[in-house]
Amino acid sequence: MPKTIRFSVSIEKDLIDAFDDLCSRRGWTNRSEAVRDAIRRQLVEQEWEAGEEVVGIVTLLYDHHAAGLDKQLTEIQHEALGIVISTTHVHIDERNCLECIAVRGEARQIEELAHRMIGLKGVKHGELVGTSTGKKIH
Amino acid sequence: MPKTIRFSVSIEKDLIDAFDDLCSRRGWTNRSEAVRDAIRRQLVEQEWEAGEEVVGIVTLLYDHHAAGLDKQLTEIQHEALGIVISTTHVHIDERNCLECIAVRGEARQIEELAHRMIGLKGVKHGELVGTSTGKKIH
Amino acid sequence: MPKTIRFSVSIEKDLIDAFDDLCSRRGWTNRSEAVRDAIRRQLVEQEWEAGEEVVGIVTLLYDHHAAGLDKQLTEIQHEALGIVISTTHVHIDERNCLECIAVRGEARQIEELAHRMIGLKGVKHGELVGTSTGKKIH
Amino acid sequence: MPKTIRFSVSIEKDLIDAFDDLCSRRGWTNRSEAVRDAIRRQLVEQEWEAGEEVVGIVTLLYDHHAAGLDKQLTEIQHEALGIVISTTHVHIDERNCLECIAVRGEARQIEELAHRMIGLKGVKHGELVGTSTGKKIH
Repeated sequence: MPKTIRFSVSIEKDLIDAFDDLCSRRGWTNRSEAVRDAIRRQLVEQEWEAGEEVVGIVTLLYDHHAAGLDKQLTEIQHEALGIVISTTHVHIDERNCLECIAVRGEARQIEELAHRMIGLKGVKHGELVGTSTGKKIH
Repeated sequence: MPKTIRFSVSIEKDLIDAFDDLCSRRGWTNRSEAVRDAIRRQLVEQEWEAGEEVVGIVTLLYDHHAAGLDKQLTEIQHEALGIVISTTHVHIDERNCLECIAVRGEARQIEELAHRMIGLKGVKHGELVGTSTGKKIH
Repeated sequence: MPKTIRFSVSIEKDLIDAFDDLCSRRGWTNRSEAVRDAIRRQLVEQEWEAGEEVVGIVTLLYDHHAAGLDKQLTEIQHEALGIVISTTHVHIDERNCLECIAVRGEARQIEELAHRMIGLKGVKHGELVGTSTGKKIH
Repeated sequence: MPKTIRFSVSIEKDLIDAFDDLCSRRGWTNRSEAVRDAIRRQLVEQEWEAGEEVVGIVTLLYDHHAAGLDKQLTEIQHEALGIVISTTHVHIDERNCLECIAVRGEARQIEELAHRMIGLKGVKHGELVGTSTGKKIH
């Protein structure tokens, strides 16, 4: 059981009212959770800036008719064996595929791997989204 | 076979040299592809701004010991049956889970669904990354 | 004097320790202020999403040798008289200029104005950064 | 006069049609300029990632009634004498001020300076937007 403490925040009444409003509009039922969420978001950013071991998700939208693309994607992922955790393939329609590749490693290494896949001919759109291993983020 | 045309771009020599440099550092072998990539990126942004039918990926990092979280995630995804395409679950370590949920629908609707899941107690970090159905992006 | 209240946040000890660490590394001396900061950031985002009256800053990097560009920028800003608040011009070196244009208006209107200036021939790089009038953000 | 060359891009007809559409909606009259713009945007990102000498703009929204804030902002900027180029102050209303600080220096150094100012008590919202000295971006 992780040890939980309480700390108190002094805040202008108007500001916390506006925040409560936003929370309820977004379906966030718990103000503490919204604050912790904001705190964790900054810690994740910090891990990426510092080049630590992180987790990322590369999403690729591509046309599976593109010659040789499937093969190239598979090869790149196999070369990066220690980094790629899993790959999900989604059929959007008869032409368009979405591939979500979960990766884990040093931040710069992951960025390089993502750029390589995003830059392949036939990839229509690619993004790398960064998250964390969660080890230091409670 | 999609119809391909050529168009020409006038550009300062120094600018294209710097870009070729960047492309080679990123392992992009094809200058045309890098230009098309930049073009598509702006079209995807436009689809999201215009509130069209889009594809998104919600990534959630969470602690699977968090009481009731698994159940809540499953329920929310089942309620959003027409929107959720697929879910991948990755075990990061004994506590931390990564879930990547591919969704498809109207941009505002997807944002709302993502906010709901990201705001759940026990979710350490969540992001929505936006891509496209690819229908209008060739 | 705005009315100030206190609210308390329950949080895992490890999480708040990591946050205190980040705060001290960034020179943030006050944990409450860091939390309020995170809260306000989300409120500003919300104002832009909702299309409210907002404040933005358009930054343009351009080459002042670009024919007619100065004149076009001046004309666009004069047409947008009710929106443009002030313009600062910085001489980066003998060729490069930085212009920061503070604007205020409805979110979509500001985006349109920014896109027009950023798209001018001779503008090397442009960005719109969104902030708030501060009226609702305390 | 910088040397200009032409290069040609092969592209699917549907893709360039969609892009022309987007350009005209944004008031971009020139397809070459839109392509150059996209290219420069990636070069600016690269300068920041590589930690080169860059230009940034820190925008701060704050309440000028906040005790001591004006003084702290002035002091921080004076300590960072070699980095701060110019400061513009905009009166949004009777309480709210917008300050745009143009800075120039090594990327990490600028990020640190920006974080220090954004974290001050009384700053409601702050952002750092990154651009370039333009030296390598033509």
